[in-house]
Amino acid sequence: MQELRGMPVVHAMCEKMKEDIEKLAIHGIVPTLAIVRVGERADDLSYERGTIKRFTAAHAQVNVVNLPADCTQSMLEEAVMDLNSDSNIHGILIFRPLPKHLSEDSLKKLIAPEKDVDCFSNAGYASLFIGDKSAYPPCTPQAVIELLDFYNIDVCGKKVTVLGRSLVVGKPLSIMLLAKNATVTVCHSKTQNLMGECKSADILIASVGSAKMITAEYVHENQIVIDVGINMDGDKLCGDVDYENVSPIVKAITPVPGGIGTITTTVLLKHTVASAIMMQNRKIL
Amino acid sequence: MQELRGMPVVHAMCEKMKEDIEKLAIHGIVPTLAIVRVGERADDLSYERGTIKRFTAAHAQVNVVNLPADCTQSMLEEAVMDLNSDSNIHGILIFRPLPKHLSEDSLKKLIAPEKDVDCFSNAGYASLFIGDKSAYPPCTPQAVIELLDFYNIDVCGKKVTVLGRSLVVGKPLSIMLLAKNATVTVCHSKTQNLMGECKSADILIASVGSAKMITAEYVHENQIVIDVGINMDGDKLCGDVDYENVSPIVKAITPVPGGIGTITTTVLLKHTVASAIMMQNRKIL
Repeated sequence: MQELRGMPVVHAMCEKMKEDIEKLAIHGIVPTLAIVRVGERADDLSYERGTIKRFTAAHAQVNVVNLPADCTQSMLEEAVMDLNSDSNIHGILIFRPLPKHLSEDSLKKLIAPEKDVDCFSNAGYASLFIGDKSAYPPCTPQAVIELLDFYNIDVCGKKVTVLGRSLVVGKPLSIMLLAKNATVTVCHSKTQNLMGECKSADILIASVGSAKMITAEYVHENQIVIDVGINMDGDKLCGDVDYENVSPIVKAITPVPGGIGTITTTVLLKHTVASAIMMQNRKIL
Repeated sequence: MQELRGMPVVHAMCEKMKEDIEKLAIHGIVPTLAIVRVGERADDLSYERGTIKRFTAAHAQVNVVNLPADCTQSMLEEAVMDLNSDSNIHGILIFRPLPKHLSEDSLKKLIAPEKDVDCFSNAGYASLFIGDKSAYPPCTPQAVIELLDFYNIDVCGKKVTVLGRSLVVGKPLSIMLLAKNATVTVCHSKTQNLMGECKSADILIASVGSAKMITAEYVHENQIVIDVGINMDGDKLCGDVDYENVSPIVKAITPVPGGIGTITTTVLLKHTVASAIMMQNRKIL
């Protein structure tokens, strides 16, 4: 069994970006992501810390715009508009879900498409679906693609089963895998023959948010298993896959923690650097 | 074997729309579709005739805006803008592909989303992908959904294999089936085990544009086969399915001609009527 760890992927991605970041520095540009956080949710704070750590290590920057949990829609919209027009900001990440009194819909139209580094806007989803590559794909499914690419796992023609159809992972990932010529099956809570669909896959990708639901009976010895789930098992993190019992069987598997989740903030960095380059090129032209 | 003909679906859809069309008539409104046709392609002319026939029979109207094959981009854009602002036009259908010197991209942003009855715009694809139901889905995949609904074929939890991943049929259809809780597999030219994927499906939907490629070996006796292909076999129309040899085996199958292709213009009518009602309601409010 090969363990598909996320850290080597992160290092390779950062190595590739190094030169771009240095070139930008010559022009006095530091790739900068703005995080818009409403309130103080523990999940948000944890992801924010991870993002700042990753960006800082790569000589990039994160500016946090923290709004009070009871802020108004127009306060939030103004914050996003300010970031849109700020030429020192290259990417915008708005933490979701927002508190219930706030609406995502108007923000989806508001956020500058060229700074939308995590596919928040409708325009981003349209580009993803059409395949015109004018927008940045959402970070978690892109992290899966980065991992597959790094470990030379060619999905072309292969049967890839995606468990979960969320708008942030399963659905966009299925379109991205299809664009890489995989034969994609999307399974979900209503799927009748879930075990059969999993067992017949060459590559199984779990993103359902259900701790250790993929047990030994779902897999086979030639299978590659990618675990996107992040769940709590008591006070310990675990994935959607029962790693202990599945890993001895399959050909390769990502651990949780230490797998896909490790890569997402580096994707965010990659998109922010790409956006900084785009903005700089536009200035020169 | 049950033959799933399109005509009964059309009649049921028209019967349902009758009351709406009569109500609109009281307000002096005739649901009107504008077709934008550049040049005189035989395919376009044939589809145009079919559309006019269907609309006329239902007391709805089609206005054809025919531009010369050598028209400029700005002539085409002006035509679309005129239709956008014309309150007597409820739906706009732009025939594709356009001649090579013209670009679809600017039109995708230009067409009024509320009159985009065949999902031409990026906004339409975004709505489809997100599932927010604010836009009209493309007519051919919607014709498949109408047929499934009419014949009470519940896809929930079922294994549905879609052959083909085009932007006008396969890809949107897979998202629409997923929204109806099907377990969807998308196959294409790169799929390694095509026969296996077809044979293991409860419902097989072919939309590859390859005459009679689905032969008896691809199907089984409990299968429902939907044939979206329209190809020429000598001087005769045929589908992607080898009807003669497949139909005796399977549980149910759509014929070509007389199947899905029969329904698409009625979907166009349904969307145009819905748009006319929306525009009328907006006027009253």
